[in-house]
Amino acid sequence: MAGSLAARTLERASFAAAFEAPAYLRSMLAFESAFANAEAAEGVIPAESARAIGEACSRLGLDVESLVAEGKRSASLAVPFVKRLTAAVSAISPAAAKHVHFGATSQDVLDTAMALCLKPCLEEADRALEAAVRALAARAREHRATPMLGRTLMQPALPITAGLKIARWALALAADRERIAEAQSTGLAVQLGGPVGALEALGDRGPAVRHRVALALGLADAPSWHVHRNPWIDLLGRVAQAVLTAGKIARDVSLLSQPEVGEMLEAPARDGVGASSSMPHKHNPVACAHGLAAALRMPGLLATLHACGLAEHERALGGWQAELALVPEIAGALGTSLDFLDTIAGGLVVDAARMRSNLEAHGGTAPGEAAGASSAAADELLARLAGYLP
Amino acid sequence: MAGSLAARTLERASFAAAFEAPAYLRSMLAFESAFANAEAAEGVIPAESARAIGEACSRLGLDVESLVAEGKRSASLAVPFVKRLTAAVSAISPAAAKHVHFGATSQDVLDTAMALCLKPCLEEADRALEAAVRALAARAREHRATPMLGRTLMQPALPITAGLKIARWALALAADRERIAEAQSTGLAVQLGGPVGALEALGDRGPAVRHRVALALGLADAPSWHVHRNPWIDLLGRVAQAVLTAGKIARDVSLLSQPEVGEMLEAPARDGVGASSSMPHKHNPVACAHGLAAALRMPGLLATLHACGLAEHERALGGWQAELALVPEIAGALGTSLDFLDTIAGGLVVDAARMRSNLEAHGGTAPGEAAGASSAAADELLARLAGYLP
Amino acid sequence: MAGSLAARTLERASFAAAFEAPAYLRSMLAFESAFANAEAAEGVIPAESARAIGEACSRLGLDVESLVAEGKRSASLAVPFVKRLTAAVSAISPAAAKHVHFGATSQDVLDTAMALCLKPCLEEADRALEAAVRALAARAREHRATPMLGRTLMQPALPITAGLKIARWALALAADRERIAEAQSTGLAVQLGGPVGALEALGDRGPAVRHRVALALGLADAPSWHVHRNPWIDLLGRVAQAVLTAGKIARDVSLLSQPEVGEMLEAPARDGVGASSSMPHKHNPVACAHGLAAALRMPGLLATLHACGLAEHERALGGWQAELALVPEIAGALGTSLDFLDTIAGGLVVDAARMRSNLEAHGGTAPGEAAGASSAAADELLARLAGYLP
Amino acid sequence: MAGSLAARTLERASFAAAFEAPAYLRSMLAFESAFANAEAAEGVIPAESARAIGEACSRLGLDVESLVAEGKRSASLAVPFVKRLTAAVSAISPAAAKHVHFGATSQDVLDTAMALCLKPCLEEADRALEAAVRALAARAREHRATPMLGRTLMQPALPITAGLKIARWALALAADRERIAEAQSTGLAVQLGGPVGALEALGDRGPAVRHRVALALGLADAPSWHVHRNPWIDLLGRVAQAVLTAGKIARDVSLLSQPEVGEMLEAPARDGVGASSSMPHKHNPVACAHGLAAALRMPGLLATLHACGLAEHERALGGWQAELALVPEIAGALGTSLDFLDTIAGGLVVDAARMRSNLEAHGGTAPGEAAGASSAAADELLARLAGYLP
Repeated sequence: MAGSLAARTLERASFAAAFEAPAYLRSMLAFESAFANAEAAEGVIPAESARAIGEACSRLGLDVESLVAEGKRSASLAVPFVKRLTAAVSAISPAAAKHVHFGATSQDVLDTAMALCLKPCLEEADRALEAAVRALAARAREHRATPMLGRTLMQPALPITAGLKIARWALALAADRERIAEAQSTGLAVQLGGPVGALEALGDRGPAVRHRVALALGLADAPSWHVHRNPWIDLLGRVAQAVLTAGKIARDVSLLSQPEVGEMLEAPARDGVGASSSMPHKHNPVACAHGLAAALRMPGLLATLHACGLAEHERALGGWQAELALVPEIAGALGTSLDFLDTIAGGLVVDAARMRSNLEAHGGTAPGEAAGASSAAADELLARLAGYLP
Repeated sequence: MAGSLAARTLERASFAAAFEAPAYLRSMLAFESAFANAEAAEGVIPAESARAIGEACSRLGLDVESLVAEGKRSASLAVPFVKRLTAAVSAISPAAAKHVHFGATSQDVLDTAMALCLKPCLEEADRALEAAVRALAARAREHRATPMLGRTLMQPALPITAGLKIARWALALAADRERIAEAQSTGLAVQLGGPVGALEALGDRGPAVRHRVALALGLADAPSWHVHRNPWIDLLGRVAQAVLTAGKIARDVSLLSQPEVGEMLEAPARDGVGASSSMPHKHNPVACAHGLAAALRMPGLLATLHACGLAEHERALGGWQAELALVPEIAGALGTSLDFLDTIAGGLVVDAARMRSNLEAHGGTAPGEAAGASSAAADELLARLAGYLP
Repeated sequence: MAGSLAARTLERASFAAAFEAPAYLRSMLAFESAFANAEAAEGVIPAESARAIGEACSRLGLDVESLVAEGKRSASLAVPFVKRLTAAVSAISPAAAKHVHFGATSQDVLDTAMALCLKPCLEEADRALEAAVRALAARAREHRATPMLGRTLMQPALPITAGLKIARWALALAADRERIAEAQSTGLAVQLGGPVGALEALGDRGPAVRHRVALALGLADAPSWHVHRNPWIDLLGRVAQAVLTAGKIARDVSLLSQPEVGEMLEAPARDGVGASSSMPHKHNPVACAHGLAAALRMPGLLATLHACGLAEHERALGGWQAELALVPEIAGALGTSLDFLDTIAGGLVVDAARMRSNLEAHGGTAPGEAAGASSAAADELLARLAGYLP
Repeated sequence: MAGSLAARTLERASFAAAFEAPAYLRSMLAFESAFANAEAAEGVIPAESARAIGEACSRLGLDVESLVAEGKRSASLAVPFVKRLTAAVSAISPAAAKHVHFGATSQDVLDTAMALCLKPCLEEADRALEAAVRALAARAREHRATPMLGRTLMQPALPITAGLKIARWALALAADRERIAEAQSTGLAVQLGGPVGALEALGDRGPAVRHRVALALGLADAPSWHVHRNPWIDLLGRVAQAVLTAGKIARDVSLLSQPEVGEMLEAPARDGVGASSSMPHKHNPVACAHGLAAALRMPGLLATLHACGLAEHERALGGWQAELALVPEIAGALGTSLDFLDTIAGGLVVDAARMRSNLEAHGGTAPGEAAGASSAAADELLARLAGYLP
């Protein structure tokens, strides 16, 4: 759903921009240009054609509304896009026009563009996750021996330490970060298969062309994944896991920041943050709202991703088209989660005194030495987080 | 995810516009204006204040980007919106400024605006569904005795008639249309509860004010549904059912339009519709792609709607905010479905000759008289569709 | 997944039993017997055959394991079931054997049996919901003026009354109950369509036979809904709404029973309830765990229900078979929710003193008169609950 | 939902048995016994106690119905289970009774037992996937140059070869198999954390005990994952990917086995397989029904898995309990998929003549050389499948 206003207060601006028309069209053009260059390098098309295509790509202005209107008739932006690019190339070099998009198919440019749009989001996520893990690991070490109530099934259980709780958050995020990074090497791949995935128009140069395009665009090289999308789904599933971890942390922080509990705040109170339109005294945990909103949306998005993957033959009818609308939303949920993580990385407030008084009030039957075991458990996790600690 | 380009070829333009900034802000202003009028009529605020508020609402220009940027700090557009509206009213009448949004809360204006944005979509859906049912019922009557293969578990079974198949589609859509209409009387309601849903600032005038607002906006009157949203969820669930029916029809049409089967087409072949960027000979069933894409997205959207409804106390943290982003997507999927239905209503091609030849080739063991029973079964359904037939 | 042990502590025994082999087979036999009687009454088969079939149905013993093993070969229990029934009838009257299941198809007996198994669950749910609404309405009236903190976005907002909060719960459950009852008149229907839904073997007696079967089994009469299942999906969607309401109540109660809040308990502490294997002092809100578990499962179940509905032609391949496994789980989630509702109906503890002290501690800026407005709001809801109050 | 009959024709018997009472209880006992041994080896409890516990574990008979009935009161089987085990140990050695489950919590035994039950399923899946890949890779090589229509958006596109299509299936399954195997090294881990995850009762021996238990049970060692479950979710997500691939293959096979297309069958026609209760001539693609049913169920199951992971504090209320019911269903869907894969591995029928005639009839505008490129593309994939080829 493009342009719904109500969604926008949940957006991370950079992630929204990453899939908007300018960025997505730029990615489509980057694909066509890199593809022409690769084909020229492999002798599939003349170098002159590649130059003309590259030149047209670098200065093509596209009217989004007419592109969309035309694209609806084929359920694909690529059809009118290629038509316009071909016209622009033709104006530069009529002979080059027939080499535009030569041997590729709509899905090649649309999927590759999607991967290219996702890439900077994942890079930004990697940095944001790293920063969050660093900040949380430091807080965990600081509070490794700060006793607080452990709570199970929403009731006081036995003492833990704040450091253990925070170290768990940090370690979970660090593992999510690693899992995402790991999956990129196969999941963030160029899509290049041509009409039925066999790159049939490229003769025996298909794999070599594909490899060059992948290198040029900074994506992994892989055989056409038109209808077997699990490396991509696997990558997005790991994104979903990071969103889940952030949501779990948001749930904990929101529970702890109930004033009756009062053990943590997502950040120190700031004017105008978490304000209410009717209750001036309120400081709502608005970052937690973001973290939870993202985590509540993600299971449905992930389910749809899998549902769309049940593709027919060599290109899906409906499923793939729906996925194109879905991936930006999955990235969007990740962006929303990162906004939450940025906040707690920057300002998580830990109230050791309230932790102690709640422990005294509600942890009556707990063995006194438990916090000791808990700080040892925190140390076990901190050792795994050593790379994130100064 | 606002503004993702890739989603746009699946959009129905009117449905997308219904939730974009101009429409949503207009709905928010309509709420505030109607609310001020209602409060004035019930003596809660002075008539002069209502006039000033109405005037400010009628000419307030809002900068969307700054609104969103500020709204992010409270996870709510309403906070900066009310601030701007209050400033505008203050410029007209300082005394009226304190009566802006008086007694209401963010959720009141945001939920009501969402209902107001959804309303014209449902009205348009009602008309489009009616048109689709009329067209399909007519085709069903036309082909009530046209024999074709019935197919079960993707294999030929016994003969039915094309009329029976199409009448089933039509009747299912007609029932979806009725179920949506029925749910609007409770599900498309004004939201007005104030900070904790008790309209506490309005004294004993709360219900009367709410009733007036509902009437003025053309919505149902109902006690605040901040955190008990089932009438709304029920309405959206019925929308999901219509999307499912359209998807099922799209699946059937796409199966029948495989050239090896060749019994139906979504529409006569038209230049440029269903074109491919790489295969000029293709006429893809692009409307079916829309119908299926919408139906594939909807289960996840519906699951998220339910997940978001598990609200905490008197206003949810995360769930409600996520729902605000979700409803336009649910409406969007409906719009996508209607695009499909418009196409088949306008142009469904039925090839009785291919039906007969497939029946002869693959329905060998079927009793000859079955098509007779099937046309009687079609008649039973057509009788229920009488209101849609000329 | 039949027989997983870990699921069983979430089960309501009567709901589990409703879909186990004895109950489901009894329902299948009830269908075949009623169907034969109806066919005899309409002259489709001889009365003697119906008698023989009825007799066989009344005493047929079925070995579940062999039935399942054979059923796997057709993805349908009905195939071996009809074979066994036919053999049993043949032993009574060879001439009657050919009238067993005459004109029906597997889906007819399996869907109808599913509806028959669901029916007593819905009846029990109706009674349990009524009891819960009655109990909660009484508590709401009792506490209509008991002030407590209203909480929004997990933070103290303004005062409400306990009665308002509880009345909202009660009214939401009452509306769910009504919506379920309403949908049964179309959603709990006999399935009878024969191989391709046209009852082709019954000539012009099809609708009359179907009507008799519906009457005999206490189900609604409706044309075959093999592949247009929205009335059924609509009914189950309303079940999902009730589960959601129960989950929302469970979320509230669990938040209020945190000892730092201490305003409610799901029930007075009882020995052995909510116990822990490691912490003898604990009294976990185990009924809330049930209510929340059911609500967490339901969105995915509902999504699957819709996904399965995207059927091919006259009988789905895969979707319908998956739905047969799904419906008992949807009912199971409802049963789990009812266990929660039974508990709070029987024993919800309201601690007015803690409510007052929390209000004093955390509701500082709230206008004193708000609780008054809130009790008026409670009265508005109680008026709608009048039929549930003594 | 334990014991629903209708689900059972979708079950793989070994997978169902893996989570039924005997297997799950055996796993719980294996945990307690290994745990006691590890504690004794680390000097936490006396060796005599471990012996008594081991002896009791080896011969404890448990009445399932009473265990479940009692377990419902704490939403946990572990509470009555530990009680019964303690009584049994006490009968052998009263002194040992206090060492039963010493330092562990309910979640430790229940989660570890779940991992133990899943383990043989994954091992069986690994073997079944390997066999399917081997069989399909061989068929792909055999048909590397067999031309057939490639089909996109459900319409004929350009020629591919049957070998390319089948090699894609095989490679996707091989990658799924690898991804599952890879995730087991972290995702199939012992759960051992004690009440709040810090193993507080074990002093500094916690990690050493945990390591021993992991080794003894053949699971990975990892810090307590009570509420940060992503390695487990990641593993199950990869299971979901395999189910999706199988579903995609089933979709293709079912489309190709429409008699109007007739290019493949899941297996040669066999008596009684795919039979209908009403149409004796039918041979339904019943294995495809299994593959599709599993794939249709999985997105909702996966969504629920993520939704349940949004845990509160040190043990979730509702989410974790729901997950215990869910994992056997996820495994069950995998089992259903494997049944499909077994069938096509054993008997996939490829009709090269029909492929050729359809290509001639519907692939008119396709360049003749395309099948050559396609067989080269098949070779690229076959090279990656070399390890699976003889």
